[in-house]
Amino acid sequence: MSSAQSPNLSINAQRLWDTLMETAKIGATPKGGIKRLTLTDLDKQVRDWFVAQCEALGCTVSVDAMGNIFALRAGRNGDLAPIACGSHLDTQPTGGKFDGILGVLAGLEVLRTLDEAGYETNRPFMVTNWTNEEGSRFAPAMLSSGVYAGALDLDYAYGRTDKDGATVGEELERIGYKGDALVGDQDFHAFFELHIEQGPILEAEDTVIGVVTDGQGQRWFNCTVVGRESHAGTTPMPLRKDALAGTSELVLAIEQIAKDNAPFAVGTVGVVEIAEPSRNVIPGTVDFTAEFRHPSDAVLDRMTDALRVRAAEIADRRGLDITVDAIWDYAAVKFDRGCVAAVQEAADSFGYSNREMVSGAGHDACYVNRRAPTSMVFIPCKDGISHNELEDATFEDCAAGANVLLRAMLAYDRDHG
Amino acid sequence: MSSAQSPNLSINAQRLWDTLMETAKIGATPKGGIKRLTLTDLDKQVRDWFVAQCEALGCTVSVDAMGNIFALRAGRNGDLAPIACGSHLDTQPTGGKFDGILGVLAGLEVLRTLDEAGYETNRPFMVTNWTNEEGSRFAPAMLSSGVYAGALDLDYAYGRTDKDGATVGEELERIGYKGDALVGDQDFHAFFELHIEQGPILEAEDTVIGVVTDGQGQRWFNCTVVGRESHAGTTPMPLRKDALAGTSELVLAIEQIAKDNAPFAVGTVGVVEIAEPSRNVIPGTVDFTAEFRHPSDAVLDRMTDALRVRAAEIADRRGLDITVDAIWDYAAVKFDRGCVAAVQEAADSFGYSNREMVSGAGHDACYVNRRAPTSMVFIPCKDGISHNELEDATFEDCAAGANVLLRAMLAYDRDHG
Repeated sequence: MSSAQSPNLSINAQRLWDTLMETAKIGATPKGGIKRLTLTDLDKQVRDWFVAQCEALGCTVSVDAMGNIFALRAGRNGDLAPIACGSHLDTQPTGGKFDGILGVLAGLEVLRTLDEAGYETNRPFMVTNWTNEEGSRFAPAMLSSGVYAGALDLDYAYGRTDKDGATVGEELERIGYKGDALVGDQDFHAFFELHIEQGPILEAEDTVIGVVTDGQGQRWFNCTVVGRESHAGTTPMPLRKDALAGTSELVLAIEQIAKDNAPFAVGTVGVVEIAEPSRNVIPGTVDFTAEFRHPSDAVLDRMTDALRVRAAEIADRRGLDITVDAIWDYAAVKFDRGCVAAVQEAADSFGYSNREMVSGAGHDACYVNRRAPTSMVFIPCKDGISHNELEDATFEDCAAGANVLLRAMLAYDRDHG
Repeated sequence: MSSAQSPNLSINAQRLWDTLMETAKIGATPKGGIKRLTLTDLDKQVRDWFVAQCEALGCTVSVDAMGNIFALRAGRNGDLAPIACGSHLDTQPTGGKFDGILGVLAGLEVLRTLDEAGYETNRPFMVTNWTNEEGSRFAPAMLSSGVYAGALDLDYAYGRTDKDGATVGEELERIGYKGDALVGDQDFHAFFELHIEQGPILEAEDTVIGVVTDGQGQRWFNCTVVGRESHAGTTPMPLRKDALAGTSELVLAIEQIAKDNAPFAVGTVGVVEIAEPSRNVIPGTVDFTAEFRHPSDAVLDRMTDALRVRAAEIADRRGLDITVDAIWDYAAVKFDRGCVAAVQEAADSFGYSNREMVSGAGHDACYVNRRAPTSMVFIPCKDGISHNELEDATFEDCAAGANVLLRAMLAYDRDHG
């Protein structure tokens, strides 16, 4: 049946939850998490399971040369590019049951719901599983969505090795997922990714749905502060060149620059290393890492400039040598406003509390956005914890997220079908 | 000859320098330093040499049960307690040619000068070599002057082990320096220690003699800051409990508290350790060391209070848990003003540029001060460097220091003979 409205379909919350818990057995850890590294036998097992489930619904399943799995449910207009959703089934070594997995299994639940309702969409609907989103066994993260988007070369991806020297290419062959389809050939008309927030905002604000509008751009730095090592007892304060005191000023400056660009900016120093530290020796050399994130590249430029200005002032005043090396950056992602509107409409149609937000972590959707209109849906996770076996999300929030995914895809199908 | 004035004697600068360079061969390192750890065969060698030199001058040499060597030159009044000087012949593993050694060999030069001049002092004069000042092979430092002063037990000292399990008691026996005299039996009427400054002040001010009036008291702390580890990308600034940012505020507070108590106070954070640091993780737990030094225990109390007040304020404002554990302290040392005056007179009599100062490091004199009127004489060392094979002092400054030592002892002998 077709309609000028998208239908008021809802997913089956219990079936979704049962599916999450069932597949969580594949690689389950004693603490309640999952260790299911990409391209291992456990990964093969969950892939095979997923393909079987999709085929049982009558979907056509294809696999590309990076092992990305595409399950297609036919719509009325068979040769149009599908409206798609998906995420990743691989996990961290001490991963949880929801990170990435929710987005794929919610997609499966969308297909099951449409099948159960006998509903014919305008465009085909598709669920995707992206290979190696985590980048834990083989760096970097979002490897195969990166190849899909043309950001990374296929040969580069094939050559990535794990700590035992196995390559992505070899492992794809070994588990039988080096597909025939060229990576990038699969077009999407739109792409939606449901994911746990992996942060504290939704839970803190008692809000169910995050309508994700942007992804953070990132700037990573390696910094070094050089002063002069000397005796803590015999060196008077005015004659010191204390590299740790200089570093401390920079740590606080990085925090302040982020606060100055509220509400979206974050700034973090995660690693600080004093060279040959000793209780009674004034630190002479300190290395530390720094990173900024913000959804606007222009703001990131200004934050970086501000950091360099502060570093120069501190170096000058304290007689230190300070270097700030920009070592990596990631462009900010502006998700498609049509997709965002579809998500917003879906959330409102259920009456779910919701708010716009920016994704602070990288996702496959960030790369897919370079190829097709894309946006994301977030749900809360307990204490904002992820990449941790204690990662948790509620029955109700998982259902809400899947419901929003379903109706966002249907709304987009209605308006752009 | 006696005189109402102390005689205008001067030491032999070349003889002093040659002696320094000669004994530096015992344990010499390729980089120009000395590795002559306490109670090793090299230490025995230099001790034997020193005893022989003193006996050649007609001194009576005694050794106490901690291996402390006392070389006595008779004066007119034989049974009075001697006016003494000394320091230590043991070195750091990568030590220099002057740290401690200068104070002993300058004392030998004082005896040689008096002998050469045929000068009879009122009281006996004495040169002392203290065992294990460095505390490198066997902790803690100033071990045997500590026993001498009654601050440390003899059995405790005998039981100290090196990394191979050898004890001080065994090693004293092994090298034949477990003497018969009871530790502490040797009285001094006054004690003077000449030492390189091990700091940058004299060199920076182009000043030859440091007239040392006090020794720093010390307060050592182990501090812990506990916040909450979380994702650097997804945790907005207002929801963070960044233990490193809190630590950075404390590092700067410690620096400021020291500056607030200028000119003598110093404050240092030498070691900072983030638990499981990672570039993309906000630090959740940070351990760090802190120390304050000042020549007044009352000021050290106020500085410690100020640190606790700042820690409580930072903890409250940032939602952190901060603990400041006082783990060790060392009482400030006020040297004898009569000894200080003798040193001052001696420096002025030569026309050496000089200034009063506080010793920032620990020395045997700090313990001896508990038993007898004591003070110290400093000379500059290059770049303030010590505990380093590149440690260096000039021919002229070593001579100046020894000259001041000689005339300070003579002035004290004149006034307190």
